[in-house]
Amino acid sequence: MEYIEQSFEVKFAYKVFFTNHIFDPSNLTIAAFLDSRADKDITKKLLIILDGGVLKHHPQLEQQITTYFQAVKGFQLIPEIIVIAGGEAVKNDEPLFYKLVDAIDHHGIDRHSFVIGIGGGSVLDLVGYVAAVSHRGIKHIRIPTTVLSQNDSGVGVKNGINYKGKKNFLGTFAPPVAVFNDAELLTTLDPRDWRAGISEAVKVALIKDASFFSWLETNAAALVAGNMPVMQELIYRCAALHMAHIGGAGDPFESGSSRPLDFGHWSAHKLEQLTHFSLRHGEAVSIGIAVDSVYSYLLGWIDEAAMTRIVTLLVQLQLPIYHPLLEMQDGKISPVIAGLEEFREHLGGRLTISLLRAIGKGEEVHEMDLDLLQQAVATCAQWNTTAS
Amino acid sequence: MEYIEQSFEVKFAYKVFFTNHIFDPSNLTIAAFLDSRADKDITKKLLIILDGGVLKHHPQLEQQITTYFQAVKGFQLIPEIIVIAGGEAVKNDEPLFYKLVDAIDHHGIDRHSFVIGIGGGSVLDLVGYVAAVSHRGIKHIRIPTTVLSQNDSGVGVKNGINYKGKKNFLGTFAPPVAVFNDAELLTTLDPRDWRAGISEAVKVALIKDASFFSWLETNAAALVAGNMPVMQELIYRCAALHMAHIGGAGDPFESGSSRPLDFGHWSAHKLEQLTHFSLRHGEAVSIGIAVDSVYSYLLGWIDEAAMTRIVTLLVQLQLPIYHPLLEMQDGKISPVIAGLEEFREHLGGRLTISLLRAIGKGEEVHEMDLDLLQQAVATCAQWNTTAS
Repeated sequence: MEYIEQSFEVKFAYKVFFTNHIFDPSNLTIAAFLDSRADKDITKKLLIILDGGVLKHHPQLEQQITTYFQAVKGFQLIPEIIVIAGGEAVKNDEPLFYKLVDAIDHHGIDRHSFVIGIGGGSVLDLVGYVAAVSHRGIKHIRIPTTVLSQNDSGVGVKNGINYKGKKNFLGTFAPPVAVFNDAELLTTLDPRDWRAGISEAVKVALIKDASFFSWLETNAAALVAGNMPVMQELIYRCAALHMAHIGGAGDPFESGSSRPLDFGHWSAHKLEQLTHFSLRHGEAVSIGIAVDSVYSYLLGWIDEAAMTRIVTLLVQLQLPIYHPLLEMQDGKISPVIAGLEEFREHLGGRLTISLLRAIGKGEEVHEMDLDLLQQAVATCAQWNTTAS
Repeated sequence: MEYIEQSFEVKFAYKVFFTNHIFDPSNLTIAAFLDSRADKDITKKLLIILDGGVLKHHPQLEQQITTYFQAVKGFQLIPEIIVIAGGEAVKNDEPLFYKLVDAIDHHGIDRHSFVIGIGGGSVLDLVGYVAAVSHRGIKHIRIPTTVLSQNDSGVGVKNGINYKGKKNFLGTFAPPVAVFNDAELLTTLDPRDWRAGISEAVKVALIKDASFFSWLETNAAALVAGNMPVMQELIYRCAALHMAHIGGAGDPFESGSSRPLDFGHWSAHKLEQLTHFSLRHGEAVSIGIAVDSVYSYLLGWIDEAAMTRIVTLLVQLQLPIYHPLLEMQDGKISPVIAGLEEFREHLGGRLTISLLRAIGKGEEVHEMDLDLLQQAVATCAQWNTTAS
């Protein structure tokens, strides 16, 4: 059989910067990065897409951005900063996707240019997708503005939008060229969003790093109280663990079935969808962590003390550990647990779910016992009653 | 400045197979490939999207496909083979894009599954894009059915659709998992399509391989006469040169500005657009090769003998070397040459155009002299008059 074999590697590299007051003229973090990408022969364009929720709390931001980039040589800021709504809804908004593609066309944004998304995870997912498919990939910069996007989604390599209600049905793997985490932007977060973002740190600690889990226990009260230096340390450590997994586990673009970072997520995705996103992603993940941790205990994989530590930490962080949709409804299987079957189908017939062998050690299974799962839900319900 | 650095490499590998009668039950090329991708635990799905133009000439194809895959264990063919129109128009058809995405959703095609596109370059571009963005990337297999797609676009790593008339405005770099070139499928090609596909071979010979160019001169008459073994050798050598460039030049996903494989293409893209695709891509490329070769001569980069050899070969291959749209229109600059300015803007202010230093050796420039270009056009017009 005659054939030609093609084989090549593509290298991806980017830095995630941690800073404060990123658009203060004296803060050179972005300016220095751009300077490293300048080219004396051409002026590169910058197109900014800004989360309206962020702008509301930082009304001076547009002016700050304009002033900041005027001082950066070799780059031309497109004067029209595009402001879009924030939140999951933007990922369901197909006309908005095309509006952003049109802006890229209209402003002549090419592969030398940079699209800069400023906002929460949903806005960054949308902007990243627009950049990834326009001209087969325009460079994009992320400036995440929530705990969740600064420690998890914003530092990773995925983007996407929903299609006909299916989360992230359309998307790509396309690493950003840089990420800038500005702690100052977190100061105006709704307390619910502040706390919800912590659940991804609990998740990554549980599957990867027992000492980080202990650190979270020690610092739970400070985190809930809004202590910024503690939150900055959390974000740094969580982002580092998340990135180490993507870069180090050998499958950054998920060509295989393994998804250890999705611990607690199978039920979370379903809960978000069934509650029409009235649950924050981080809150749904917290519930998912509780259920899968209790399930790991009932399976005999972790001991009661470990389970108690996990649930206690979530409760201390004022994160939810239970939702009524987890119960059987009218004698029928819980709609969330029914989602497990959909998930199995989605994965092509073989389930891959992360559970816990210990605090700090995730392990995958390919089957879940539905009775045991319903028992785990009952335990979470009990904990929930005790906690409230 | 505090930062975390992310760095990883993603490996891509695929084979391009050369065969005959690919869906004959005794031809095990596809079956053996799929067998290498089988998994005893799950049945993987196959979704086929077929170019209606191919089906017209091979009406037995649907039945052959169905019979063929029934014999392949571990895979389930989605019974509904999706037949779409062929040609550039499919890349302008946004509802068709969503129809294919819907089919992926409806049939539960996941990342274990394979989407198989069978058709000319336009159909493969569309199918590749649909696969690339659905579920952040479903594995796709290409079965190109034209000379052009078997020797050039189909063996590469790009996909895309047009947006508001802009060619390939939306797309990604997403290598296929396998390509199957079936010579039998070329036997029913329109002679115009048969010949047009040869121009990409002339192009790659000119920039990469002088001996291949000599081979083309030797075999021009046989190619025009429809000699299949000669055409198969052409396709193999052209595909090999094309793939060697993608895999070997260090920038398979075109993060830089260099586009040596685009020799002759700046004017070709504009000619296609201005003629509303009544010119085939390969015909437009032939004209583009002629113009940029003559320009290379006028620049003093190649001698008259080389220029004469190039134009003579194109004429012998019955490929066009001139189009009236290259002339000034009503005293104004040619709309094709005006496209050079658009192209410069598209590239962010710095033009990158491949020219010839010799037969077999391309070299890039960042400026083109418009007067000299108009002179090159006049020379092509003269050659054209002489030839016809």
